[in-house]
Amino acid sequence: MSEQHKKIRIGILGASGYTGAELLRLLVRHPAAEIAFLTAERHAGEPMETVFPHLFGNGLPIPVSVDEIEWAGAEVDLVFCALPHGTTQEIIKGLLHATGHNAIDEMIVERREDLIAAMPGDVRVVDLSADFRFENVDTYAEWYGHPHYAPELQPTAVYGLPELNREKIKTARLVANPGCYPTAALLALVPPVESGLVDPDDIIIDAKSGVTGAGRAPKEATLFAEVAEGVHAYSVAGHRHGPEIDQELGKALGRPVVVNFTPHLMPMNRGELITAYVKLTGGTSADDLRAALTERYAKEPFVTVAPSGVSPATRHVRGSNHCVIGVFPDRIKERAIVLSAIDNLTKGSSGEAIQNMNLMFGLPETMGLEQAPLFP
Amino acid sequence: MSEQHKKIRIGILGASGYTGAELLRLLVRHPAAEIAFLTAERHAGEPMETVFPHLFGNGLPIPVSVDEIEWAGAEVDLVFCALPHGTTQEIIKGLLHATGHNAIDEMIVERREDLIAAMPGDVRVVDLSADFRFENVDTYAEWYGHPHYAPELQPTAVYGLPELNREKIKTARLVANPGCYPTAALLALVPPVESGLVDPDDIIIDAKSGVTGAGRAPKEATLFAEVAEGVHAYSVAGHRHGPEIDQELGKALGRPVVVNFTPHLMPMNRGELITAYVKLTGGTSADDLRAALTERYAKEPFVTVAPSGVSPATRHVRGSNHCVIGVFPDRIKERAIVLSAIDNLTKGSSGEAIQNMNLMFGLPETMGLEQAPLFP
Amino acid sequence: MSEQHKKIRIGILGASGYTGAELLRLLVRHPAAEIAFLTAERHAGEPMETVFPHLFGNGLPIPVSVDEIEWAGAEVDLVFCALPHGTTQEIIKGLLHATGHNAIDEMIVERREDLIAAMPGDVRVVDLSADFRFENVDTYAEWYGHPHYAPELQPTAVYGLPELNREKIKTARLVANPGCYPTAALLALVPPVESGLVDPDDIIIDAKSGVTGAGRAPKEATLFAEVAEGVHAYSVAGHRHGPEIDQELGKALGRPVVVNFTPHLMPMNRGELITAYVKLTGGTSADDLRAALTERYAKEPFVTVAPSGVSPATRHVRGSNHCVIGVFPDRIKERAIVLSAIDNLTKGSSGEAIQNMNLMFGLPETMGLEQAPLFP
Amino acid sequence: MSEQHKKIRIGILGASGYTGAELLRLLVRHPAAEIAFLTAERHAGEPMETVFPHLFGNGLPIPVSVDEIEWAGAEVDLVFCALPHGTTQEIIKGLLHATGHNAIDEMIVERREDLIAAMPGDVRVVDLSADFRFENVDTYAEWYGHPHYAPELQPTAVYGLPELNREKIKTARLVANPGCYPTAALLALVPPVESGLVDPDDIIIDAKSGVTGAGRAPKEATLFAEVAEGVHAYSVAGHRHGPEIDQELGKALGRPVVVNFTPHLMPMNRGELITAYVKLTGGTSADDLRAALTERYAKEPFVTVAPSGVSPATRHVRGSNHCVIGVFPDRIKERAIVLSAIDNLTKGSSGEAIQNMNLMFGLPETMGLEQAPLFP
Repeated sequence: MSEQHKKIRIGILGASGYTGAELLRLLVRHPAAEIAFLTAERHAGEPMETVFPHLFGNGLPIPVSVDEIEWAGAEVDLVFCALPHGTTQEIIKGLLHATGHNAIDEMIVERREDLIAAMPGDVRVVDLSADFRFENVDTYAEWYGHPHYAPELQPTAVYGLPELNREKIKTARLVANPGCYPTAALLALVPPVESGLVDPDDIIIDAKSGVTGAGRAPKEATLFAEVAEGVHAYSVAGHRHGPEIDQELGKALGRPVVVNFTPHLMPMNRGELITAYVKLTGGTSADDLRAALTERYAKEPFVTVAPSGVSPATRHVRGSNHCVIGVFPDRIKERAIVLSAIDNLTKGSSGEAIQNMNLMFGLPETMGLEQAPLFP
Repeated sequence: MSEQHKKIRIGILGASGYTGAELLRLLVRHPAAEIAFLTAERHAGEPMETVFPHLFGNGLPIPVSVDEIEWAGAEVDLVFCALPHGTTQEIIKGLLHATGHNAIDEMIVERREDLIAAMPGDVRVVDLSADFRFENVDTYAEWYGHPHYAPELQPTAVYGLPELNREKIKTARLVANPGCYPTAALLALVPPVESGLVDPDDIIIDAKSGVTGAGRAPKEATLFAEVAEGVHAYSVAGHRHGPEIDQELGKALGRPVVVNFTPHLMPMNRGELITAYVKLTGGTSADDLRAALTERYAKEPFVTVAPSGVSPATRHVRGSNHCVIGVFPDRIKERAIVLSAIDNLTKGSSGEAIQNMNLMFGLPETMGLEQAPLFP
Repeated sequence: MSEQHKKIRIGILGASGYTGAELLRLLVRHPAAEIAFLTAERHAGEPMETVFPHLFGNGLPIPVSVDEIEWAGAEVDLVFCALPHGTTQEIIKGLLHATGHNAIDEMIVERREDLIAAMPGDVRVVDLSADFRFENVDTYAEWYGHPHYAPELQPTAVYGLPELNREKIKTARLVANPGCYPTAALLALVPPVESGLVDPDDIIIDAKSGVTGAGRAPKEATLFAEVAEGVHAYSVAGHRHGPEIDQELGKALGRPVVVNFTPHLMPMNRGELITAYVKLTGGTSADDLRAALTERYAKEPFVTVAPSGVSPATRHVRGSNHCVIGVFPDRIKERAIVLSAIDNLTKGSSGEAIQNMNLMFGLPETMGLEQAPLFP
Repeated sequence: MSEQHKKIRIGILGASGYTGAELLRLLVRHPAAEIAFLTAERHAGEPMETVFPHLFGNGLPIPVSVDEIEWAGAEVDLVFCALPHGTTQEIIKGLLHATGHNAIDEMIVERREDLIAAMPGDVRVVDLSADFRFENVDTYAEWYGHPHYAPELQPTAVYGLPELNREKIKTARLVANPGCYPTAALLALVPPVESGLVDPDDIIIDAKSGVTGAGRAPKEATLFAEVAEGVHAYSVAGHRHGPEIDQELGKALGRPVVVNFTPHLMPMNRGELITAYVKLTGGTSADDLRAALTERYAKEPFVTVAPSGVSPATRHVRGSNHCVIGVFPDRIKERAIVLSAIDNLTKGSSGEAIQNMNLMFGLPETMGLEQAPLFP
């Protein structure tokens, strides 16, 4: 099978976090993927068998520091950026500007110089951070606490939600991979907002996420004993995925939208559930809404609308690139409940990134993403 | 200390489930409690050390079947009914009608005859099931699937939420202990509904509960491997605690109310979190709402309103009888988010039942319920 | 890829348990597998999308009761038996005796008659139960509480641990798939026992297993609230996998062996860890033992010996067919610690069963089993 | 009740970790305890309601940095040191040497000067770290990687396992609170070693611990996603509790002992289980061993020996100061299995420290430690 496809040469920046691990889990079995290099600042020089013992035996390259990449011989077609928010903008700016030395932020210019000088001009990028998701760089600055470092690149970025944006992704040089919560929320809500079935000014999104969404950097808040056996809401009314959902719903509607978005931290590794409470318009019933979503996603390989009465569960999509959506009537008249379940590391992050890669390189969209969910 | 109080002689019907275990955990250390008898149909005759090894060394009586109770010598002051829904009505009817033989449902009359004949007339009851929570017996019949078996007793039952109903509880013969979700929801929502700070027709309650709320009877749905590492909504728009919340909010308001109530099953043993989305009225701010709740509960020993910015977590009330409420402004204008965290087995069930007992017998309301939460 | 292989037509008896789910998870992506029929007594007639929502979209047949199988048109090459222990013997006896009507146990003869009459003579069987694992049918009877129902078939059964028994499996008609604990223990211990590096009379096996090993039938002992947040040993000195390990170690040694085997129930879904404490013989060091195991498994696709100092973790083999073995020196002189980690549902059960299938049908041994472990 | 006892004025050094939290959970309800001050380097100046929201409403003092303690007015009777290993020695040295300025290690002399100058001479100390557990300071140095900082104090320290050392603890000025694993292991093993029922040179201790044992400092290894849904052994043959167990068993025996000690990290918050594999001597049976332990602990309030056939579970001692011990015959002749379950934060640490305090101050040994276990 691997013979049939020219290999895509891939670099991963930030390969030692959970999204890096998930990219690697999927890419080491992807028939058209070839790992060219990996970076991992804290683990540079350490074999990947030590960083991620579960990836033993895959012949992965030893990760380097980002400024040690040797672009000359790397012949890289695609870079996945799985770096923390903020740090990605300068690096991608370097990557995409063949002559962009001066544009690099001063703070990091020394470290990056050699990198940039040696960089090829035709690499494409899927950025898993939030750095290029906001069309309005001021919105980015407001929510991420510092000015955008590559505003001139922002207009070239494509918001990488394949089910809503497939054609633009195919030709994009820079794809901004959506946030995990926005992926689940937008798949459930963009079609009804777009077709006017729900009131866009009365959308409440109660979200629940596994702990891997918070990353692998050690923090007290994500220690086992702080998370197990309990639940709480966090970043109430202040989570950065709120304005990201606003933006995409607003684009679908053609005017600004503000939603309620309230995330909760769950005592589980993986999985994300959106419970959205919506007001139906003009006599729409919950059945109508379900029917419309079912039709909308009939041909999508990764989105399934559950039959009436079936409640989507995160454990039924674990480790897979699937999204399952369910619709229920509310006890309050003229309202409905829309549920959407994904694996935050797969469809909510690295799986979706590979789905984008497949589109960008003309491969079957499901390639390397066919795993059945791991239940239990 | 135990010298200072005449002991209350207590019988527990259904002592081998999780609410039974929680009653016992608290009562074996309660200075004024004395266990007269326990019933446990499946475990009758088995030492409690085997049924609940964690209760070893407390000299608990061996549980009997409910029709083996010897009332004559028992000298019981109070019975806690921790039986499944539906079965309680006939039993309590027997308990409270000293001469009520004929009223007993035919199905169980034979089994109960001796029991009833021997029964004292002055026993008081705290029922942890839903059997006496609905003032309207038709609502009970609609949601619980069979006619009420003791409609003549229903008017004598008092809804046992101490913070809202303290005076009536003190003199009640029959207390209907609230559901776990209603306890958390009503503590957060009754005051603002009563004082007109929120729109009663636009209340959305997203609820999350630990698995013990589903009881100890073996079911596929509550096996470890069906619950761990995942989350899903259940009984969407059809959970029986919805109409219970409606009833009590309606009483506070003076007219019928219907709320959205959407429970989710959490991969944890204990704990319940209510995330309520409300519309504020007449210029009320989230700060106003928090201030009103803070004032309302200033003297309550078991209800705390968290300061601005603090998100209630179930793990901070684990094993305790506390409820912590938090209020946040919504991103949508004129809306707010009200969070309420309890331990479903303590304040949501057995702890609250003991709080009711303390009130009924003139004891300090906090007696036996002073444990600090178990964190982590 | 699927074009290259004639499809194996497969029936699964008992498809609605956890081993059934795991067989299906792997087989729906196996290039040479085709599901002919499924049985599930309690779920007969129910779509598999309801039984296992995570398997939606795979076009699986609706499960039938075992006596509804229509063998005539089924053209089945292989049957996986994922039925409870004991029930399998009669069914397999029926399957393998084309003319074996009279041999069927009387208790079930009526139900099975049509089945047997219609049955083809050339089907092959991988039995995931313990029914054919014991060469001595008296040992079976002693540990499983009833006489063996098909003693005449027992001599034809091959113990299906591929790494130790590969050649016999290839031609077997009936493969007894090993227990989960024995798989992990024997891979670690057979080579050193065989080569005399450890004392066979002083082997202590402390084992830890995820809850799925206990099956999907509802039991109080495997409810979430009975397992989460705790650990305990069970079946101490009385677990049925003890004599199974004895048998295989004894075969390797050429004389009877009795080991200590002490399993513990872990609050996790999947995974099994063996911590074996062994006495080294004749000056063997822990390093020698590790070197010997490393050499023994150098060409095995599914067994890896970790380098010195690396402790095998179940989470690093989750969802994969791998076994990772580690060896450490003990603090007590002339002793060593051998650790062995598998996923109990994959290498410990269904994955190994498919590995056996691959061997039996001349396919590459790793086909359909290439998934990288799911971490986290 | 609190009237009956003169209050003990207590300082806690390191109050913001898990052992600090557990000390506070128990002390805020202890009838004879009064918190004089708390220290918490990273949280100095922050209200305890923020550090530990579950301890709200207890009027706890705001924690200070250790060098801000004002000893003059503190009138402290007892200090609990819940600081990391190594840092405690100097601090306690300061505490206990009224004139000990010069002895303070140079590294920290400046910080501690004022502290020491102002310090009272009659404070007593329970140290929860390992700093004073080793009678041989060279053993300390070998296992903790640096020389002992207060060797002159070591001879005054008493190993604080009340069931084995009660009388010495009563008069001790400095109590070295045992490690969590040693507590569970020694309660199970000292009596049989002492009375010659087991071979002291063939003791294998397979241990399993909840994650809180690793402390609250953020580390990758204790993040939720690194621990949940898996198990592994750690510090194999190199854990510091090994030599601590050796020491105490050796004291019981009168000659040096070396045991196998192999700890495993469990996906749970609290709880510790020891599965010890022992060789019986001179015809001793498992029943004999159980009987001997039962007799030994007959009058102990916190140690229970389970009847034959009952396997101790950590969830049955959760949140309590109890230890449950069970004994089983092995499948290997003349061997037995001894299990011992505790809550690592209670009997394994802070509960035991309070038990020591009760002894030191002439209080009933169970005071403040009567809580029934929290199950589930």
